[in-house]
Amino acid sequence: MRLSQTLLATLREDPAEAETVSHRLMLRAGLVRQLAAGIYSWLPLGLRVLHKVEQVVREEMNRTGAQEVLLPAVQPAELWQQSGRWDKYGPELLRLRDRHRREFCFGPTHEETITDLARRELRSYKQLPITFYQIQTKFRDEIRPRFGIMRAREFLMKDAYSFHIDAASLEETYQQMYQAYTCILTRLGLEFRAVRADSGNIGGNLSHEFHVLAEAGEDCIASSDVSTYAANLELVEVPAPTVPRPAASATLGEVHTPGQHSIAEVSAALKVSPEQCVKTLLVNGADEQPVAVVLRGDHELNRIKAERHPDIGAPLRLLDAAQVEQAAGCPPGSVGPPGLKLKVIADGAAAQLADFVCGANRAGLHLTGVNWGRDLPEPQRADLRNAVTGDPSPDGHGHLQLSRGIEVGHIFQLGTRYSAAMQAVCLNPDGKAVPLTMGCYGIGVSRLVAAAIEQHHDARGIIWPAALAPFQVILIPVNMHKSPRLADAVQQLYSELCGHGMEVLLDDRKQRPGVMYNDAELLGIPHWIICSERGLDQGQVEYRHRAGTESQPVALSTVAGFLLEQ
Amino acid sequence: MRLSQTLLATLREDPAEAETVSHRLMLRAGLVRQLAAGIYSWLPLGLRVLHKVEQVVREEMNRTGAQEVLLPAVQPAELWQQSGRWDKYGPELLRLRDRHRREFCFGPTHEETITDLARRELRSYKQLPITFYQIQTKFRDEIRPRFGIMRAREFLMKDAYSFHIDAASLEETYQQMYQAYTCILTRLGLEFRAVRADSGNIGGNLSHEFHVLAEAGEDCIASSDVSTYAANLELVEVPAPTVPRPAASATLGEVHTPGQHSIAEVSAALKVSPEQCVKTLLVNGADEQPVAVVLRGDHELNRIKAERHPDIGAPLRLLDAAQVEQAAGCPPGSVGPPGLKLKVIADGAAAQLADFVCGANRAGLHLTGVNWGRDLPEPQRADLRNAVTGDPSPDGHGHLQLSRGIEVGHIFQLGTRYSAAMQAVCLNPDGKAVPLTMGCYGIGVSRLVAAAIEQHHDARGIIWPAALAPFQVILIPVNMHKSPRLADAVQQLYSELCGHGMEVLLDDRKQRPGVMYNDAELLGIPHWIICSERGLDQGQVEYRHRAGTESQPVALSTVAGFLLEQ
Repeated sequence: MRLSQTLLATLREDPAEAETVSHRLMLRAGLVRQLAAGIYSWLPLGLRVLHKVEQVVREEMNRTGAQEVLLPAVQPAELWQQSGRWDKYGPELLRLRDRHRREFCFGPTHEETITDLARRELRSYKQLPITFYQIQTKFRDEIRPRFGIMRAREFLMKDAYSFHIDAASLEETYQQMYQAYTCILTRLGLEFRAVRADSGNIGGNLSHEFHVLAEAGEDCIASSDVSTYAANLELVEVPAPTVPRPAASATLGEVHTPGQHSIAEVSAALKVSPEQCVKTLLVNGADEQPVAVVLRGDHELNRIKAERHPDIGAPLRLLDAAQVEQAAGCPPGSVGPPGLKLKVIADGAAAQLADFVCGANRAGLHLTGVNWGRDLPEPQRADLRNAVTGDPSPDGHGHLQLSRGIEVGHIFQLGTRYSAAMQAVCLNPDGKAVPLTMGCYGIGVSRLVAAAIEQHHDARGIIWPAALAPFQVILIPVNMHKSPRLADAVQQLYSELCGHGMEVLLDDRKQRPGVMYNDAELLGIPHWIICSERGLDQGQVEYRHRAGTESQPVALSTVAGFLLEQ
Repeated sequence: MRLSQTLLATLREDPAEAETVSHRLMLRAGLVRQLAAGIYSWLPLGLRVLHKVEQVVREEMNRTGAQEVLLPAVQPAELWQQSGRWDKYGPELLRLRDRHRREFCFGPTHEETITDLARRELRSYKQLPITFYQIQTKFRDEIRPRFGIMRAREFLMKDAYSFHIDAASLEETYQQMYQAYTCILTRLGLEFRAVRADSGNIGGNLSHEFHVLAEAGEDCIASSDVSTYAANLELVEVPAPTVPRPAASATLGEVHTPGQHSIAEVSAALKVSPEQCVKTLLVNGADEQPVAVVLRGDHELNRIKAERHPDIGAPLRLLDAAQVEQAAGCPPGSVGPPGLKLKVIADGAAAQLADFVCGANRAGLHLTGVNWGRDLPEPQRADLRNAVTGDPSPDGHGHLQLSRGIEVGHIFQLGTRYSAAMQAVCLNPDGKAVPLTMGCYGIGVSRLVAAAIEQHHDARGIIWPAALAPFQVILIPVNMHKSPRLADAVQQLYSELCGHGMEVLLDDRKQRPGVMYNDAELLGIPHWIICSERGLDQGQVEYRHRAGTESQPVALSTVAGFLLEQ
């Protein structure tokens, strides 16, 4: 395509509203434009990238034998009432009424619609397993849409739904989808992690999230440095210590800590590491009596684990200063487990400490050299904290490392959640009607574009992975408008490369080379061919890769072959 | 694809709700299912057809140099307020409010959105002309959605918008689009007419509708039997007669016509043809005084032409019986122009009659042998009727024939209607800001699927044109499940044909041949290959085309080549 004939909407300045790299670069490269909060138009170059993602997703879905359908965007409320989600879904569901005042919604997801189709069309186990998918515009009325395409309200999604006669069949398709998602993200050239999203230990159905790794990610992922284990940080179990607790070696002491409330303040003042301190949080107990939760000074409470503990209330609430004063007789920063007249539950790592520092339950006073079992009773132990880098991997292989991820996919074993509520049944081989067992599998097609940019960019712009680039090659002719000879040669090269099926962008604008280079860097086209009259005299062009800094000469006559090799 | 692994949702019975052939066949062949009134899910086979249309449309749009974009489905009310359509559009516009109570609509069309994009991104005539298009789900809240996909509320549409510095440039793109639409419909194998949709004589911008010809069409189209002239019936001008009126030869008489009010009744009773009678309609005049409109008995009043007449009121109203009684002193069925104390305007054909029959302005009485200029004054003449088959074509070439059409496309020279209202301006070569000149070009992608079926079917099902068929070839093996030898041969043939890039559907169900033939006929796959053990013994298969009745033997070893030739 000729750049002079396309809408090139690059911006020189960073748009003020853009908070993340991908948001900024998608606006600057002219891939999208905002129409309203969280609602974007895709411009020609951006849409080419979106279509690339779409096509890879479609191919991999087809390869699994899934069948493409297109369900309506506008869905009747009745179906959502049958599944019970009309009332539960909350204001993220964009509800509307048609001219006859009938209630509908703009579908954010399609479990109800596909289950309705399944209950009407699937009758026998002989039709199973069957998987349907669609690639479709959806709407989720986020209260605070942000980060551009990353958390838009209107977005493009691939959602798939599988139907089975039993859980074993679901498991098989689930594994196929897991593989298909792995193929999709691998083909797109993205570094990612498949993360178990459920806890695995409290019932609940199996579920994996697929995260593209990038600093801007909203999720924290813990993964093993040697195995494929990966999980959302908040769901990582921390195994109890396997070595005995060190023996007590210090004597119990009291130190004045006026005005020092936080672990950082106390550890700095006492010149001990936070790892040698404990913090004591008073929270609501399951019986509404306050409970003391004790963590090592450098650790963070994991809300999900706490709420699951039988002695702790859910939802979890930290006591406010007045309540702490009443329960412990001191301000929050001075609470410690010794002498506390409350149930004490210590995280495994805190329970493993000897000679530790903690609050003395008196304002401005801390205790040092404290030891469980000597200075206070042995605590009840539990896993209550977030894992940290270096913790052993729960699968027994290697140690954890933390990274940030952008959730781009989610696969889920739904079981009979929807089929039971909506009476979607099927005859099994015994002729008995049983509810269909279901799986669902989503991938954020538009979000993937943003995630790819978060992972692949530099200070000057986007660096597209090959499979996502809107064009593979950009032809940059230097001062072509002053040289008919160069114009001819470039035109010939352009035709030749297009003839080889390459996607070529020809920058035929009357612009200075600097402007052309800047736009090419911003747009992130991988392969650059720079043509000049001087090069022409020597029968050659310059080749550069967007990710590199060096250029190399290539004989004009061999450019096509050279590019095909790249 | 193997039929056993796809969702084949064919129905044996006609669905009760289906009013038209395409609605019935799309349901019976399992292409779509209704989710709510005017809202349909596309099942796998239907979606394949929809994608074929989409791809042809995309290719032809790209060929014109138009650039694909994807605008949001959800549009803010502000833009529609700026264009003035928020209040004008009426209840077909599906309005909604987001969680913050801000007003939006589900876009039925995108003039506002694209004009907003243009005013932000287009600055100079150097960026013009430029055309954007998108293929997108739209919603129009029809009061009475019907005919299935044909008049659905949610539908897939290609809409394109072009921007120009002046009308001459618009005209050029308009012609390109006209050609592109012609290519699209031709490639899809459809018989169609491009029809001038504006009157051409009352100002208004140029506009053409593209109609697929089919009996179920809602529009009546008049086209020349020799030239490319075609127009919506209601807009066809009827030239004034060029030959003199025959001379009067009969004497004026009175006949009793008790209880005979309509032209049919009167002409039957008097044994004269309706062409020899006139009917006299009393309507509201421009000055609110009644006006008499006189038409030949076999002709129909054209409301648009009447409303444009300076002496006739708009909107047009027929006087009711009491008003007629008051104005003419008789019931409506007895009104005639002689002696009427009202302004009389006669259509050209009625004014051309000699010796005609008309009402006598007395109940139960008609006049015969009436002649203008002798028995009553010469009337004011005007073109007030619909054209009929055999009328001369307005372009002077040939005669008109009438057919019914389904509107599938509409191209329109908008001019500055939206750009002026929304301040979308551009610098012209003189450095002056001028409003952008616009064109818009729509094609009903999903409606085309239904229109194609209306034109291509028989009593047994759909007969897909090649470019639309979900699969080109269907393999029908007879009793394959009883013959491993046949199963092997069929599997090998299936692989071979797929290997040649053909889209092949293999009916591998355990079904009787009759069921397989019925489904194949319903689905309308063009090329059938029927394999049997007996054929295998002779090294051959049977070939049949869906549209034909005869089958022919083809050597098994040459099937691929044979099909490639078809």
